[in-house]
Amino acid sequence: MFNLYSLKGGLDNVQGFFCDGVNVGMKTTPKNDGDVAFIRSEIPCDVSARFTSNRFQAAPIKHYQQYPDGFQTNFILMNAKNANAMTGAKGVEDIEAIFKELEKYQPLQNPIMSSTGVIGYRLNQKKITSAFDKFDFNAKSSDKTARSIMTTDSFKKELCFKIEMDDGTEFTIGAICKGAGMINPAMATMLCFIVTDAKIPKKDMEELLSEATEGSFNRISVDGDTSTNDTIMLLANGASQGYNKEAFREALNKITFELAMMILKDGEGSNKLVAFEVKGARSDEEARKASIALSNSLLVKTALFGEDPNWGRIASTIGASGIECDDTTLTIQYDNLLIYSNEQRELDQEREEKAYKIMKNSSFRVTCDLGLAEGSYTSYGCDLSYEYVKINAEYRT
Amino acid sequence: MFNLYSLKGGLDNVQGFFCDGVNVGMKTTPKNDGDVAFIRSEIPCDVSARFTSNRFQAAPIKHYQQYPDGFQTNFILMNAKNANAMTGAKGVEDIEAIFKELEKYQPLQNPIMSSTGVIGYRLNQKKITSAFDKFDFNAKSSDKTARSIMTTDSFKKELCFKIEMDDGTEFTIGAICKGAGMINPAMATMLCFIVTDAKIPKKDMEELLSEATEGSFNRISVDGDTSTNDTIMLLANGASQGYNKEAFREALNKITFELAMMILKDGEGSNKLVAFEVKGARSDEEARKASIALSNSLLVKTALFGEDPNWGRIASTIGASGIECDDTTLTIQYDNLLIYSNEQRELDQEREEKAYKIMKNSSFRVTCDLGLAEGSYTSYGCDLSYEYVKINAEYRT
Repeated sequence: MFNLYSLKGGLDNVQGFFCDGVNVGMKTTPKNDGDVAFIRSEIPCDVSARFTSNRFQAAPIKHYQQYPDGFQTNFILMNAKNANAMTGAKGVEDIEAIFKELEKYQPLQNPIMSSTGVIGYRLNQKKITSAFDKFDFNAKSSDKTARSIMTTDSFKKELCFKIEMDDGTEFTIGAICKGAGMINPAMATMLCFIVTDAKIPKKDMEELLSEATEGSFNRISVDGDTSTNDTIMLLANGASQGYNKEAFREALNKITFELAMMILKDGEGSNKLVAFEVKGARSDEEARKASIALSNSLLVKTALFGEDPNWGRIASTIGASGIECDDTTLTIQYDNLLIYSNEQRELDQEREEKAYKIMKNSSFRVTCDLGLAEGSYTSYGCDLSYEYVKINAEYRT
Repeated sequence: MFNLYSLKGGLDNVQGFFCDGVNVGMKTTPKNDGDVAFIRSEIPCDVSARFTSNRFQAAPIKHYQQYPDGFQTNFILMNAKNANAMTGAKGVEDIEAIFKELEKYQPLQNPIMSSTGVIGYRLNQKKITSAFDKFDFNAKSSDKTARSIMTTDSFKKELCFKIEMDDGTEFTIGAICKGAGMINPAMATMLCFIVTDAKIPKKDMEELLSEATEGSFNRISVDGDTSTNDTIMLLANGASQGYNKEAFREALNKITFELAMMILKDGEGSNKLVAFEVKGARSDEEARKASIALSNSLLVKTALFGEDPNWGRIASTIGASGIECDDTTLTIQYDNLLIYSNEQRELDQEREEKAYKIMKNSSFRVTCDLGLAEGSYTSYGCDLSYEYVKINAEYRT
């Protein structure tokens, strides 16, 4: 058995990891946020990563994929404001040149780069390498690191869990993450770096990271778009010597789910977090299709913003999702309130008022039971506000 | 050979058809618009129809489907404000009761009902049948009829073409249509009624309506949602005795394409009409996937609204669409301006300014050549503005 508890901060509690973030003039507002950051480990780490399904993977991902299977690393360099995507062979060459410069400051073993920002422009090597004089390579500044990778994020995202085993051993998992817009099931536009001092075998890292990603980042949708740079990465340096698979699974699932919910709460201009639970489908896959159609639907998202208990848009979106469904077996609930069933099709005033109260909450659950079989899936979405349009019409400028 | 020319009005020029629209108090604004309307033919008509792919088809569609193959009709009754969708068996019974009442006014042969509006409420039979005393059953009021089926539409949509054959015969095609929001490739939320006095064989009606729908309504996207009520219907009464297949094909393709563009221009809160041409794909189907991903992407739509020549979002959306693509063979053009190619990845200031000028236009073309093979497809989309969110947050109230 084990105890799992949450610590303040993010990466800073994890043994053997150091991190810092500085501003080299790419981000001009807010002034105190950095735009270049690093995470390093004094002991070489095993690494497991999941990348975007976008065919146009950014240069940092291509650079990563040049390393052989099972490679170890001791350094991740990160930058905001420029995604280094659609930059062709030059994009990878720029990374190599930057690391050549970084080697003058730090011993590097298979260093990894990760970028976020605008697509289609080459990195400014000079600006990025100017960070190296400013970095404190022995800092444990998780806050500055988390702030440095923010783009349209309105708050920084970091988390840490410590696990104490009954036999007295312990280990820690810390993470930082960024993401607000362009968030879609099947990888959000997001960067997430999870570091641990657990002595986790490489094959467990792969298995547990896949499971955690599927249960978290793959289930959230802000706007249905998938970026060129999405990355989730787990680094383990074994510094603590402690490890237990079930405990690690629980902590990793918790950390990724909570970070995913933070991204959704920070969905550009969003005010509400809604769980779309679809059950009673012919298969989990059909439930997933309907659930994701709901979290992506513009009409559902605007109805959420308008706090209109318009279940017709929910039903119509399920009907349009291409799955088997039947309006006589379907039921729709908002939290525990039955809002549609074959017997109660029209919304009377009492239920409408109750529904309206539920929709006023900053988070609630929509449950659609198709009444056909046992397939189920839950995805998470948010509303679409004027603010989303404003942020995305003006981004880049 | 033949001459095709456009006439003022819509349904009113077509021999043997009558139509009218009246207000029975369901629509309260604007005051002069009707909410119940009809189209009738003095000669029974052949009919061909395409309905929504939404699994929850509305009651009027279920009612239509009760008629045997090859049935003829002489009457379509239409209403706005209530979609009669998700109303179960009662929804169809309500239609039957309404037609029972209508029979007291007009001889009916397999009458058809068509509804648009809010989902989840039963029709108000009393209000709808109160229209029958107000109708002028011998009117040719295409304008009033077109206005009566409007919901969030900001302008009425009607068109008419006359075809004169070299042998002196002639025929006419007229149409009305509604649709603004909830417009998605694979049937828009729209009603479209096309009537003709051509002596067109039933099998040509089916073939040509399928072709025309695929080239028009199936290619437009306002918000990626598909409704419960989408209907496109072609009625032919043969009153003119004239017909030529090629001439009819051209006129029908033209009428449906122009109506589809009207819907897009009226896309809720939209200001720009953009053609997304994808070519050079491995197949037409892959080109279609990428093209529709572009016309549905929230990030592309908000970039259009912001008039930001941010081709990165175009590229990223293609990359995320699940098709085969390669950033070294891809080119992107706005109208005739090359905006991205392997050789010219970064947008210099001169091209950025030119791109910005193109995006200021109320319509333009984005051409993405994947450079892989010969597959191509064009779909049509619009921008996403604050106004869209406002309209859809407030609709129903």
